[in-house]
Amino acid sequence: MANGELNVDRSALDQLLQKRFFIAPSFEIYGGIKGLYDFGPTGTALQQNLIGLWRQHFVIEEDMLEIDCSIITPSRVLETSGHVEKFADWMCRDTVSNDFLRADHLVEEVLEARLEGDALARGMAEVSIQADAAAKQAGAKKSKKKGGAAAPVRLDDEAADRFRGILAQIDNYDGAALGELIVKYDIRNPATGNAVTAPMPFNLMFGTSIGPTGALKGFLRPETAQGQFMNFSRLLEFNNQKMPFASAMIGRSFRNEISPRQGILRVREFTMAEVEHFVDPLNKAHPRFDEVAGLTLPLLPAARQLEEKTDPVFMTVGDAVGQGIVNNQTLGYFLGRIYLYLMKIGIRGDLLRFRQHMGNEMAHYACDCWDAEIKTTDGWIECVGCADRSAYDLTKHSEATNKKLVVQENLPEPLVYEKLVCVPNSKVFGPRLRRAAAAVERHLAALPEAELAALRDALVRDGRATVTLAGTAADGAHEITADMVAIEKQTITEHVRVYTPNVIEPSFGIGRILHALIEHSYSVRAGDGQRAVLGFNPLVAPFKCLVLPLSGNASFAKPLREVARRLRAAGVPARVDDTASASIGRRYARNDEIGTPFAITVDFQTAEDNTVTLRERDTTNQIRGPLQEMVEVVKSLVDGASTWSDVLGRYPLIDAVASDTEA
Amino acid sequence: MANGELNVDRSALDQLLQKRFFIAPSFEIYGGIKGLYDFGPTGTALQQNLIGLWRQHFVIEEDMLEIDCSIITPSRVLETSGHVEKFADWMCRDTVSNDFLRADHLVEEVLEARLEGDALARGMAEVSIQADAAAKQAGAKKSKKKGGAAAPVRLDDEAADRFRGILAQIDNYDGAALGELIVKYDIRNPATGNAVTAPMPFNLMFGTSIGPTGALKGFLRPETAQGQFMNFSRLLEFNNQKMPFASAMIGRSFRNEISPRQGILRVREFTMAEVEHFVDPLNKAHPRFDEVAGLTLPLLPAARQLEEKTDPVFMTVGDAVGQGIVNNQTLGYFLGRIYLYLMKIGIRGDLLRFRQHMGNEMAHYACDCWDAEIKTTDGWIECVGCADRSAYDLTKHSEATNKKLVVQENLPEPLVYEKLVCVPNSKVFGPRLRRAAAAVERHLAALPEAELAALRDALVRDGRATVTLAGTAADGAHEITADMVAIEKQTITEHVRVYTPNVIEPSFGIGRILHALIEHSYSVRAGDGQRAVLGFNPLVAPFKCLVLPLSGNASFAKPLREVARRLRAAGVPARVDDTASASIGRRYARNDEIGTPFAITVDFQTAEDNTVTLRERDTTNQIRGPLQEMVEVVKSLVDGASTWSDVLGRYPLIDAVASDTEA
Repeated sequence: MANGELNVDRSALDQLLQKRFFIAPSFEIYGGIKGLYDFGPTGTALQQNLIGLWRQHFVIEEDMLEIDCSIITPSRVLETSGHVEKFADWMCRDTVSNDFLRADHLVEEVLEARLEGDALARGMAEVSIQADAAAKQAGAKKSKKKGGAAAPVRLDDEAADRFRGILAQIDNYDGAALGELIVKYDIRNPATGNAVTAPMPFNLMFGTSIGPTGALKGFLRPETAQGQFMNFSRLLEFNNQKMPFASAMIGRSFRNEISPRQGILRVREFTMAEVEHFVDPLNKAHPRFDEVAGLTLPLLPAARQLEEKTDPVFMTVGDAVGQGIVNNQTLGYFLGRIYLYLMKIGIRGDLLRFRQHMGNEMAHYACDCWDAEIKTTDGWIECVGCADRSAYDLTKHSEATNKKLVVQENLPEPLVYEKLVCVPNSKVFGPRLRRAAAAVERHLAALPEAELAALRDALVRDGRATVTLAGTAADGAHEITADMVAIEKQTITEHVRVYTPNVIEPSFGIGRILHALIEHSYSVRAGDGQRAVLGFNPLVAPFKCLVLPLSGNASFAKPLREVARRLRAAGVPARVDDTASASIGRRYARNDEIGTPFAITVDFQTAEDNTVTLRERDTTNQIRGPLQEMVEVVKSLVDGASTWSDVLGRYPLIDAVASDTEA
Repeated sequence: MANGELNVDRSALDQLLQKRFFIAPSFEIYGGIKGLYDFGPTGTALQQNLIGLWRQHFVIEEDMLEIDCSIITPSRVLETSGHVEKFADWMCRDTVSNDFLRADHLVEEVLEARLEGDALARGMAEVSIQADAAAKQAGAKKSKKKGGAAAPVRLDDEAADRFRGILAQIDNYDGAALGELIVKYDIRNPATGNAVTAPMPFNLMFGTSIGPTGALKGFLRPETAQGQFMNFSRLLEFNNQKMPFASAMIGRSFRNEISPRQGILRVREFTMAEVEHFVDPLNKAHPRFDEVAGLTLPLLPAARQLEEKTDPVFMTVGDAVGQGIVNNQTLGYFLGRIYLYLMKIGIRGDLLRFRQHMGNEMAHYACDCWDAEIKTTDGWIECVGCADRSAYDLTKHSEATNKKLVVQENLPEPLVYEKLVCVPNSKVFGPRLRRAAAAVERHLAALPEAELAALRDALVRDGRATVTLAGTAADGAHEITADMVAIEKQTITEHVRVYTPNVIEPSFGIGRILHALIEHSYSVRAGDGQRAVLGFNPLVAPFKCLVLPLSGNASFAKPLREVARRLRAAGVPARVDDTASASIGRRYARNDEIGTPFAITVDFQTAEDNTVTLRERDTTNQIRGPLQEMVEVVKSLVDGASTWSDVLGRYPLIDAVASDTEA
């Protein structure tokens, strides 16, 4: 496959995913519910492997504190976090059918259809390439157009350019702006041709009520982050008060999408893996930064997107942080670690980029954010977000609960410094100012040093001065005389530094990564009945080894059980396929479709000399060796202790007993 | 600890669990929500290990098809399954405070308090033993009484016996019966002394609505089973149409408890692991039954409970199935496998029993059910249910959706048999019966063979007969004459057998098992400052090895990193504790509290000869050896490849450099 190109027949792939039970619509026998999918045995095993490798790569290798919190979340927590107010999409209603449509998707779909129609009218042959280019131009997660089949209507050049410009920054429009576009360009529901209402906000959280009274409102969590913030103090304590540290959580989150589409890429229920790395705001250096500084990443900074460029620049993490393109070492460190994880599981490096969020697009809590976007048949898909949430969440929760969510650090040496302070003379200050005394005292205590010095000078010079309060219970001008206060230098000694940590948050959509990985692993074996193969590496493959008899002959049962038992004992997830009615070629083929990398076959020679054949999926090469040895070979291949070419050095290729094409 | 005894200071344990962050109340900084708990790093790792072993023991070793389905479930699915109508508890409202109380718990709590008061009044010293005995007598999940502190009021003997009898079958009362008890015995809210309303049903499912319209109602799943039933046909297809087979799911489920108590034993959100084993109703034999038939289990059959006995009988699985005490081999097989799993993770065999459900207590879908109950400080707790759900769910869902949820089995040989059939003579039958013809034909086709034979005889004898229809569009009597039908033997050949499988369901409450395991692992080290130790085996321990320097000396940093790196490379989850402010004894102690079985310590000798010490938690014994060797020893101990006594044979004990009591 050429660099940056993806050649997947999506409809054939979607069929394969259901046929081999990677995924299926939930509640399908009841007609299904949009945006809800079940993972079958292959999808579940693949997801478990992605999660296991994630846990190894992040939690274990980085000593993170993994926790597991409640999904049901009381409303108050999500009011504080801003989700009740701001976690919403804009939706329109079809004025006749009353169908709900997500406003940005509607505008996008209609304008893309018009551009396609324009391309058709201009007689360009390769319409699909053009549409793909338009999607690329848009630079973000795009979907295949569903409604609005393109009619060949030519646009004037200026309109076409304007549409492309709008699509390139579709994530940047708010409800009002989307409403203007809808009116200005007469955008209608493509499914019905009806006009739509002005966009209105729709909160994406699923609501529920907790307990028997119905009085306690709650939501299903929209992210796993809040549970980690809730437990900040306990986590810090568990970490023996040491900073920086990271917590992590893997679990289900929920978004009540307005009108889900794109298969498992935009769903109402999904598995996330999130890290909250708590860091000193004054020092976002990372102790292991050196380990990733030399990695070259494809970066698409915000500034480059504003220039309407969508091709990434290739830069080392070290340079990107050094030049201030990535804000700090910790953010850069995680971009590097995310990259390494995605490479390890088998995402194609030429179909990956890190895109910085532009202003309007940023979540309400974030102060900087990079998305790892992976190219799929649906365009570039955000699969991992890496945000600097600053001190937003901890500060808000602390204010709402009046609980301290801070780090108290003993200073290595006490901090000693001089400071100008204002000490009221209680004999005169209170009696003179009466009811205003407390407010004036607070005002004086809070004055910046320069203003306090000016006040001191005025009192020395004039014997009196006026202070003016605003926003207090004693607003207005108050006269202070020299006898009322002493303003003098004092020596302050601080032993403890108190601060609210900032949070760097790498946040992984496991289902999206899984889907992208399947597409990147998909190929069709040339000249072989167009059989599909999922080329998963052994680390992520749902099953590692297929075990099968050449045919239904009864003598094969015993060695077959022996192979299965030995693989089980070696901890190698395997599947037996002894379906007598299917030819061996057909059984190889259906296991290629679920991406099983190796197959051990028991045949007539097994009864004679206890040897079996071992087949590798991608080459379809086969070798033969003693049963027990072949199990050990599979084990070492699965563990990464050896490669297939190592193995070929030790065991010669054989002519397959059963043709691979005998399907 | 004596057989069957559990000596745990629950309040000290609860403190430890929060201090070492096994669990903590969710949203604690907001005051918490009853029945919702978060797992901290230790609790999460422990839970992950229980799940990993479960997956190994059930999914991998038994070739089950693990799937992962949606939590949000549309109402229609749960109407069919019976949950909308029947998944409810009875609750009462305090007539003054309006607090809600679960009716059975209220009755239980008040009667237990009266029995305690009676015991006090009778001057019995060991009240707690008496209360414990009462709880034991009740035979089921009991909680410590909260309200209703016992006043020393003597009951007459007959009343005390009656109360004990009620408690022994508290799970057997429905709402009306509980209401009668409340009136008869003047049961009031113990917290307020107020009267309560009659019990009313409260559905335990959390409701929500799906999508923007609000019209599509859904619930959070109350069990993972339904998702497995939804996918039955796909699973059967994935299994190449072979029966029997099992699916499995591990995931979160939800129950909106009326007034949760008992810590993590009765919560609103919990992780379950469920197996649905689909089996031929005519053949519930299990191919691997022999592997468990010899296991002796503590069984408490329903008949024994009706005799008010609560001590189990000890019986092999083979005998229990042979004598019909356990209904069939498959149910027996899973009781054996459940037992082996619980033993493997470290549940005490003397604190485990399998109790059969009594009639009223059975879930609405079950036809037989055994609970694995584990004794804790809260009494006997249901931790695993093992139910035969018969064909209930598949039949119901099939009826509701009009989809076939059946197995079609090619018969090894066609089934050939003779059968009496009624063939209408179309020339006469239709014209004579006119509008009633179709209904009469259906009626005749459905007649049992004996009735059809009687009709034939009547027609032969009398030339005519009368058939009477009911519940059709042509109700009433219809005359049939001999010329209208031919009733004759035909030879029927069937090639396929079609049936709805039965389902055997082992269902595990992971949180409950986790809590019971913690209690069974808890001890206090005698004569050692009363330090708590959690004696987890290495398989389940949250962390396997503690890595620590003797003190804060800078020279320890490098070998410390070396040990940590090598353990990580060996895949051994470890934690470093280099807190300079804590003595080594204190650091050992806090790792004993989280159950870390091994500790490697770097000391001054390490710099000289690169040796380290290795400490075992339960014995507090220490050995010394080369750094790399000690890591390998830990690896082999954690993998179960060697035991501590093996290791002591190879490395002599040393006097600990740092006293273990130096806390």
